[in-house]
Amino acid sequence: MPRTIDSLKGYYKEHEKELLEEFFTFLEFQSISSESDSKQEVLNCAEWLAAYLKKIGFDTQLWPTAGYPVIFASYLKAGPDKPTLLIYNHYDVQPVDPIELWESPPFEPAIRGGQIYARGAQDNKGQCFYTIQALKALLKISGTLPVNVKLCIEGEEECGSRSLSSILKTKFKELQADYLAIVDLGIPSLDKPSITLGLRGIITMDIELSGAKSDMHSGSNGGLLYNPNHALVELLAKMRDRSGKITIPGFYDDVVSLEEGEKEQVSWDFKPEEYKAMFGVLPTGGEKDYSHLERNWVRPTLEINGLTGGYSGAGFKTVIPSKASAKISCRLVPNQSPDKIARLVKEYLEKNVPEGITVKVNIHHGGKAIRSNPDSKVVQAFARAYEEVFHKPCQFIFEGASIPIVTELAETSRSEVVLLGLGLADDNIHAPNEHFGLDRMEKGFLIIGKALEEL
Amino acid sequence: MPRTIDSLKGYYKEHEKELLEEFFTFLEFQSISSESDSKQEVLNCAEWLAAYLKKIGFDTQLWPTAGYPVIFASYLKAGPDKPTLLIYNHYDVQPVDPIELWESPPFEPAIRGGQIYARGAQDNKGQCFYTIQALKALLKISGTLPVNVKLCIEGEEECGSRSLSSILKTKFKELQADYLAIVDLGIPSLDKPSITLGLRGIITMDIELSGAKSDMHSGSNGGLLYNPNHALVELLAKMRDRSGKITIPGFYDDVVSLEEGEKEQVSWDFKPEEYKAMFGVLPTGGEKDYSHLERNWVRPTLEINGLTGGYSGAGFKTVIPSKASAKISCRLVPNQSPDKIARLVKEYLEKNVPEGITVKVNIHHGGKAIRSNPDSKVVQAFARAYEEVFHKPCQFIFEGASIPIVTELAETSRSEVVLLGLGLADDNIHAPNEHFGLDRMEKGFLIIGKALEEL
Repeated sequence: MPRTIDSLKGYYKEHEKELLEEFFTFLEFQSISSESDSKQEVLNCAEWLAAYLKKIGFDTQLWPTAGYPVIFASYLKAGPDKPTLLIYNHYDVQPVDPIELWESPPFEPAIRGGQIYARGAQDNKGQCFYTIQALKALLKISGTLPVNVKLCIEGEEECGSRSLSSILKTKFKELQADYLAIVDLGIPSLDKPSITLGLRGIITMDIELSGAKSDMHSGSNGGLLYNPNHALVELLAKMRDRSGKITIPGFYDDVVSLEEGEKEQVSWDFKPEEYKAMFGVLPTGGEKDYSHLERNWVRPTLEINGLTGGYSGAGFKTVIPSKASAKISCRLVPNQSPDKIARLVKEYLEKNVPEGITVKVNIHHGGKAIRSNPDSKVVQAFARAYEEVFHKPCQFIFEGASIPIVTELAETSRSEVVLLGLGLADDNIHAPNEHFGLDRMEKGFLIIGKALEEL
Repeated sequence: MPRTIDSLKGYYKEHEKELLEEFFTFLEFQSISSESDSKQEVLNCAEWLAAYLKKIGFDTQLWPTAGYPVIFASYLKAGPDKPTLLIYNHYDVQPVDPIELWESPPFEPAIRGGQIYARGAQDNKGQCFYTIQALKALLKISGTLPVNVKLCIEGEEECGSRSLSSILKTKFKELQADYLAIVDLGIPSLDKPSITLGLRGIITMDIELSGAKSDMHSGSNGGLLYNPNHALVELLAKMRDRSGKITIPGFYDDVVSLEEGEKEQVSWDFKPEEYKAMFGVLPTGGEKDYSHLERNWVRPTLEINGLTGGYSGAGFKTVIPSKASAKISCRLVPNQSPDKIARLVKEYLEKNVPEGITVKVNIHHGGKAIRSNPDSKVVQAFARAYEEVFHKPCQFIFEGASIPIVTELAETSRSEVVLLGLGLADDNIHAPNEHFGLDRMEKGFLIIGKALEEL
């Protein structure tokens, strides 16, 4: 009997064409969860994916929510003596602006240089699809799966996972599992198989400053009016000091640092020059008192994700705008509370806003940071799968990004978490020209298939 | 023989309907000089206005330029012993964004509550049109004009007057005059006839900061990348201190303050509460060491007219943008040089931009401040006209806004300047719902007609 990995390789080779055709169909849905214009497309995407899972042999349900449905699919025929693995993915994607920078349309997948270009090609439709394909292959090859598998695929990851979060309590029983695999992460490079030990939490908010009741002439009123644009840049600039430290009172109060023993198990290797080669600029941001990867992995941040105020079209308009706005996000580490951080930012703004300007803060749904144990059975099983597929030892890393729902899902399912995936830093997720490698489609497929056997 | 003012009043009453119909035609041209999409409309507007002037008896030319044509029209039959008055207006208008805040479409004039609503209703089509109507009426009533009149009506005032500026030297002879009336100003309120003694200069520029070569994920890169949005708010915030003083080195070096004697002739009356009642907010901006009207009239400013960076659409996008931009303008006082101030701002930005961010500054055409002499013949003649029309003494004020071309035109024409008009602070020029009063159409018409007799 051939080794699982060889059977999987053979299957992949034989079915690659069909697999990519089906993947392209998945990518063509404009499932942008944060834009109401895309509503029908998000729903169509969920329907299509649920039907697909049913067809390959999963008991599939669309859990209705106040927002987009959660796809819950299970295959529990491995038997009660086998462990249960809950796998998390999402079928929604980020918006596509600035659309003019895409080299091919974001929802018309195209292959160039061994890469599939489309919104969601990696995050998370690509990683979701190789996972499903591995399950489909194992079922075709062996007629069953080595462990019980539950899939939880939501449609609001890119806008805060509010709906999945709100139904967790009522779906408590269905979600019980021994292990939870979050297949939405990455590796530092193609020669560095890695499992992620932690994700940062996140809290996002919109800030709106208002001055006069309408836009005003900057000559006739300049020197009189307090310009909301000025109030905004002053408030935002004062949130950080010259060393990159965030100055909002209490911001760092609850931060738990890594202990020395934990620190040693992790690969902190980082080459600023390689970062520059990839992205065109040296990584000069963040807190100057910490190393690059500490800043990105285990320290909280505050970023301005959007700025808008006054006239930004062609030509010039000498206006003092009535309003100026910003979108900001904070990445959080254990044990920072998203709600508390949002409150601190809001209080800072309300306390410091100048006379003549009013501030409104709209806080979105957030998520706590998560950490997993490198010695747990599930992390070790996936590490072995990475090693077999890459023919290299698997290292441990962290990830600066967030999957807000992970901590809640781990708590609800009472499972041990493993964070994995095959994203690369230059896949342009959340940016124009998102892409994912054909090679990684296959490797992901093999890792999932192999890890199930190792559990 | 009836007094001039009575004949004018009679004429106005008789012709008001026709006058408004023609004015509406003038307002319907979308003559937005700063938006290239409006090019044909700007040209059509110039053609229409030139034809109109020809029809009422002016020798009319369209001076071609690299941009939009300048309308030059003259009536020199008053004779060589009479003085020549050059009158300046402009036929171009500001952009209309945010268009959704207009209660009626900006290029479909509508009368509500005695006000004409349209882009340009005041600035400057309204003031241009009552001027022309006064000339037309005098010609109809008397068959001639009491002085020689030249009209210079340009099409690029709202974007820096570059074309008129560039042809001044070649049109030196045609533009010679004894007096220059700039009919593009205002009065503090309907019961305060006023002549403006000074305008601030202006320089505008676009600032663009660049970081990574494309937009980046704010989780995976937060703490690594220097966010251009942060660099922008830091650079802009540091341009002013807590007292509102501009901190750019050398910014105030050339400022000439008013002498005590000059100061005494001017009405500095200002009620912050009235400002708040009009615009919804107290005037808390500008330099705290100066009175309200000093800040607005005789002190320079730096305003952020536009801010843009990252995602500002619906929902949220956790992005660190590749670029962040601002549009800024400085209002200048005698003897500040627009070019020098632009250079100081550029040098400040280049010196202070953080590592990992590059800055590009695009400087537009500027204009120097202007001051006129309250004791000059032309100022006195117009002051008497205001007094007769308003039945009140005419006071002297300044204006915080700029008409960049005025200083150059005064120098070229070698004339004494008078700055006048009937704008009100709440006319919403450069903003949605611009409007001008029917009562002021008539008053402006009477003032122009009467002043010509006084010269």
